[in-house]
Amino acid sequence: MIVILRADATEANIQHIAEQATKLGLKTNISRGAERTVIGFIGPEDALRVIPLEVFPGVEQVLQVLAPYRLVSREFKKENTVIKLNYGETIGGNKVTVMAGPCSVESYEGLLSIAKKIKALGASILRGGAFKPRTSPYDFQGLGEEGLRILQQVGKETQMCTVSEVMDTRQVELLAKYVDILQIGARNMQNFSLLKEVGMCKKPVMLKRGMSATIKEWLMSAEYLLANGNFDVMLCERGIRTFETATRNTLDINAVVVAKRLSHLPVVLDPSHGTGSWEYVGAGARAGVAAGADALIIEVHENPEEALSDGAQSLMPDKFAELMAACKRVAAAVDREM
Amino acid sequence: MIVILRADATEANIQHIAEQATKLGLKTNISRGAERTVIGFIGPEDALRVIPLEVFPGVEQVLQVLAPYRLVSREFKKENTVIKLNYGETIGGNKVTVMAGPCSVESYEGLLSIAKKIKALGASILRGGAFKPRTSPYDFQGLGEEGLRILQQVGKETQMCTVSEVMDTRQVELLAKYVDILQIGARNMQNFSLLKEVGMCKKPVMLKRGMSATIKEWLMSAEYLLANGNFDVMLCERGIRTFETATRNTLDINAVVVAKRLSHLPVVLDPSHGTGSWEYVGAGARAGVAAGADALIIEVHENPEEALSDGAQSLMPDKFAELMAACKRVAAAVDREM
Amino acid sequence: MIVILRADATEANIQHIAEQATKLGLKTNISRGAERTVIGFIGPEDALRVIPLEVFPGVEQVLQVLAPYRLVSREFKKENTVIKLNYGETIGGNKVTVMAGPCSVESYEGLLSIAKKIKALGASILRGGAFKPRTSPYDFQGLGEEGLRILQQVGKETQMCTVSEVMDTRQVELLAKYVDILQIGARNMQNFSLLKEVGMCKKPVMLKRGMSATIKEWLMSAEYLLANGNFDVMLCERGIRTFETATRNTLDINAVVVAKRLSHLPVVLDPSHGTGSWEYVGAGARAGVAAGADALIIEVHENPEEALSDGAQSLMPDKFAELMAACKRVAAAVDREM
Amino acid sequence: MIVILRADATEANIQHIAEQATKLGLKTNISRGAERTVIGFIGPEDALRVIPLEVFPGVEQVLQVLAPYRLVSREFKKENTVIKLNYGETIGGNKVTVMAGPCSVESYEGLLSIAKKIKALGASILRGGAFKPRTSPYDFQGLGEEGLRILQQVGKETQMCTVSEVMDTRQVELLAKYVDILQIGARNMQNFSLLKEVGMCKKPVMLKRGMSATIKEWLMSAEYLLANGNFDVMLCERGIRTFETATRNTLDINAVVVAKRLSHLPVVLDPSHGTGSWEYVGAGARAGVAAGADALIIEVHENPEEALSDGAQSLMPDKFAELMAACKRVAAAVDREM
Repeated sequence: MIVILRADATEANIQHIAEQATKLGLKTNISRGAERTVIGFIGPEDALRVIPLEVFPGVEQVLQVLAPYRLVSREFKKENTVIKLNYGETIGGNKVTVMAGPCSVESYEGLLSIAKKIKALGASILRGGAFKPRTSPYDFQGLGEEGLRILQQVGKETQMCTVSEVMDTRQVELLAKYVDILQIGARNMQNFSLLKEVGMCKKPVMLKRGMSATIKEWLMSAEYLLANGNFDVMLCERGIRTFETATRNTLDINAVVVAKRLSHLPVVLDPSHGTGSWEYVGAGARAGVAAGADALIIEVHENPEEALSDGAQSLMPDKFAELMAACKRVAAAVDREM
Repeated sequence: MIVILRADATEANIQHIAEQATKLGLKTNISRGAERTVIGFIGPEDALRVIPLEVFPGVEQVLQVLAPYRLVSREFKKENTVIKLNYGETIGGNKVTVMAGPCSVESYEGLLSIAKKIKALGASILRGGAFKPRTSPYDFQGLGEEGLRILQQVGKETQMCTVSEVMDTRQVELLAKYVDILQIGARNMQNFSLLKEVGMCKKPVMLKRGMSATIKEWLMSAEYLLANGNFDVMLCERGIRTFETATRNTLDINAVVVAKRLSHLPVVLDPSHGTGSWEYVGAGARAGVAAGADALIIEVHENPEEALSDGAQSLMPDKFAELMAACKRVAAAVDREM
Repeated sequence: MIVILRADATEANIQHIAEQATKLGLKTNISRGAERTVIGFIGPEDALRVIPLEVFPGVEQVLQVLAPYRLVSREFKKENTVIKLNYGETIGGNKVTVMAGPCSVESYEGLLSIAKKIKALGASILRGGAFKPRTSPYDFQGLGEEGLRILQQVGKETQMCTVSEVMDTRQVELLAKYVDILQIGARNMQNFSLLKEVGMCKKPVMLKRGMSATIKEWLMSAEYLLANGNFDVMLCERGIRTFETATRNTLDINAVVVAKRLSHLPVVLDPSHGTGSWEYVGAGARAGVAAGADALIIEVHENPEEALSDGAQSLMPDKFAELMAACKRVAAAVDREM
Repeated sequence: MIVILRADATEANIQHIAEQATKLGLKTNISRGAERTVIGFIGPEDALRVIPLEVFPGVEQVLQVLAPYRLVSREFKKENTVIKLNYGETIGGNKVTVMAGPCSVESYEGLLSIAKKIKALGASILRGGAFKPRTSPYDFQGLGEEGLRILQQVGKETQMCTVSEVMDTRQVELLAKYVDILQIGARNMQNFSLLKEVGMCKKPVMLKRGMSATIKEWLMSAEYLLANGNFDVMLCERGIRTFETATRNTLDINAVVVAKRLSHLPVVLDPSHGTGSWEYVGAGARAGVAAGADALIIEVHENPEEALSDGAQSLMPDKFAELMAACKRVAAAVDREM
């Protein structure tokens, strides 16, 4: 922690701050420049975070030296985290894993049909929502537990791992019973109660980045999961809100690279939400693979006109086949399997 | 709903869309312009929202005619909603109500002392967090139920209503037992499970606007509360995230006016979070009263240097006294009591 | 300037940085913490800004201690700048000055008629665009010099000062001949060639904040004006771009207070562009006066349906009369004349 | 153009609007729904844009049917624009062209040395700023005409085309004399005077997207160039401002795809500004090639520690060599030459 003082800060102001530091077991380094005095603190920075130094008399600015996350950082763990799943599947290794499926689970027959097709094309994890976060209370809210049952059943029949969203602390146990990966959605990235509950659960988690969250906030939310005991965490970049309206969100390709540099956790890319339109999903997926994403998650539907949610961004199986073929070539060009 | 077709849309595309409309019980109005054909739908628009018209062949753009919220809209209810609280207090009438208190409940003595002071200065509702949404898992998370007990006790002794944040569906019943107003925080504005649970509860609710939410999304979240049976809802503008870093958030004064025009619900302004710095809170509060806010919520602490959270934006009692004096003059200038 | 080193920075890295500092005539203060070494530089910070310290081996982060602007800062000049204009008018003193008029100058008769009305209601500066920055090349681009001639003529007849936008370095001399205040529009806030040219001119300038500019960037652009010799600069907050679409822009009321704290320059508020809709202009103006704006600039048109630009946000004279009446009461409540 | 009326709009309101349309030579299509009346206009939409329909009594919302740009749109010209340059170079064809060089021209020897290296690695266009848009008036502003002379000289010696930024209408002629491509920088994207002047010039132009501009606004600015006679326009995505601070800008990969779908103009990607850090440039470049960019522009410097601008995002020649090798493999994977 570094504190920059106002030009008019007094010697008494400096002493008052130094005393607080001493009380907390920290040493100070006081640098008196021509225009500003700067105080550096030596010792465990966490101790200082409980003190609102901004309100101390004479303080102009407080600067953090260390990232506020620890367990998720590359400094804590140098090598990439590789998450092991059923059927020998992994996320975070050399292979670019593909998760695909409909936005919502709609019926057993429909899900089975699509699951077979996407598996044949190279997807190994089946996605499907049972509890849907919808902006309108009047929109389809998902099939609930019935949807989970269908997802599990189809996963078993096709030998695919499954992923579905958990929205409520009271659903964590239920989801953990049915699916292989619990998804925390963008709107719940800072639902700290949910993060704690999922952190205490033993299932792998995919944490989507909040719509307007910084990478640092995203990593702090992941820190909640690890700090509560769950280290099988994958990050998912799904586009952020910007002023652009031609796309539903702006796919932040930089975030893939930055997150992987700052953290050891694997990064999944979601070009379906990241673009919001089936016409742009393929290019987003190729860009993600080229930039180093560890996995893709893609919405696929056999009849988008009848999808109960997110039809506009769902690919038909033939377009998904094209996407897979193109991504495999790009993966090879960056020395990744797919 | 209006659909604008691509320049190259065919007659078959038009018929396909018209048939869907007919199936849903809607009539269509087809307008063939020189460059584009436009289809308007006549009938209940909600029926159409389940259909992803964007993916129909030939469609370029889909435009909604009606606001997607109903119960919260001025069209549904012309007159202002006035929420009645204990001790004869109201929110949404001619009086500008003031909520104040520390960010977190820290101790019985501390809270009682500050409560007496702010009540003497004109605040009638006591705020204090017991469950705190903190970006870091290592930061102070609140006193929990013990905090609620203290808040209730001090509320009774000072004859003030109380407000505190609920973060988890499992806490709703508990909060409802102790406090007069349940607060839903900015980070949970789209925690739809929580919205439903609080909607089913009988307590007044203060719904904070999400950090990057549009007014429309905020009203949609309020719609969740009303649609689940709770009509005692007040909206709270607490600043939005922008590129500006000199302030913690950007207080969106326009939002006060727009929300009151679109909705019958009262609007509270939070200049403490909306600025993030005690030096700017007073100006934000005056601006809010001048623009028409129905209530203010202000963080006050007797010793911000020792506050366990949000010290930087807390006012000391003497500054709060200045704020109240200034706001009363502005309130009078816009014909409001305070 | 403070440099935070990576955890793995070597002693050689530290020496290399220290040597650079010495070459530039700066002293260093090296603080070796448990987890990070921090280097502070003592001496004129400007010397360091030419060196991209971020790329030096071992550097993690570079933090600026001093604001990069000097002449515009409160530290450079403690007292408020008061700009003197013709007819005894001032901006930046106790009086809240009002600029008003149509978006564009359209005709002599029209401008004269509106000028008389707004002057009678208390406006003292007449606005009117002659060169218009339009997003479309096919939209009305202004009357050019003919518009300036009309503006000057009407200003003289009504004894009002005038303000109009300059868009091109080649127009500066021309504008300076006709008007009392040169306006630099939001889209040109970082048109550095224009800033230099206007900085070398002797006329008062109103510098609008860029649509997505931070306050710091806005002040840096003002610094260009002062550094080139023009100290008669007023800042104008005109709303920033946010995700909100219910209003054209988000009026940043905080910016009024922050800019006045960081700088000695007067701050004008433009609630017409800051809201984009005549229905919201009045509330924005009242909020601005309550927060401490030194002046208002308001678009007024006698027949908005026929306005050649910005009709949607123009007030008719009767609404402008209401705005003036309300703002005068608020001004009195904050001890300002109007 | 479509106008949605308020629920309380009267028959007189409707007639008033219809009359305006008739005066302008447009037909109307009036659709009376259960909750809203909607008026569509048939005929040339441009005629209507001069009328601020938003202020007509009874109007709730005005929606545009057609994109406001014409000459830049795919509808105007189906096939891709291919810009021809000296030395047989092109932009917009199957080849992914590479522009590279230092941020600023600093000296003849330095530029010649770097030019030879990047040419050997596959770059064919040499970049180098002579007039620099700097946020601070105290920062290095470029060598001016001397820089252009050096750039031209080195271009001739190495047989490379050249690109440099033009900041002022008065510089257009000068730049056109020395360089092959005029660059309009992000901060000048809506400097309409400059757009007009460059539009009247015969040189190819690279138009950078404004920091917070939508794709539609970017295309409107390109429309200014084409409408003034210059059709040799390439668009350049250089990252947009978002809340993310770990990168200088957010590279909007979606924008590459969207711009190429909406327009026939070639799209250049600038991962140097789009990331702001040399560590991330390579991944951004690969992503851009994978997504379909027609060209890359990359900052390269032999000694970033001594760069007079943008050192932090400049690649050293060995890193640039790695980038080129990786991008060539990705280009091949998407069937592009490089």
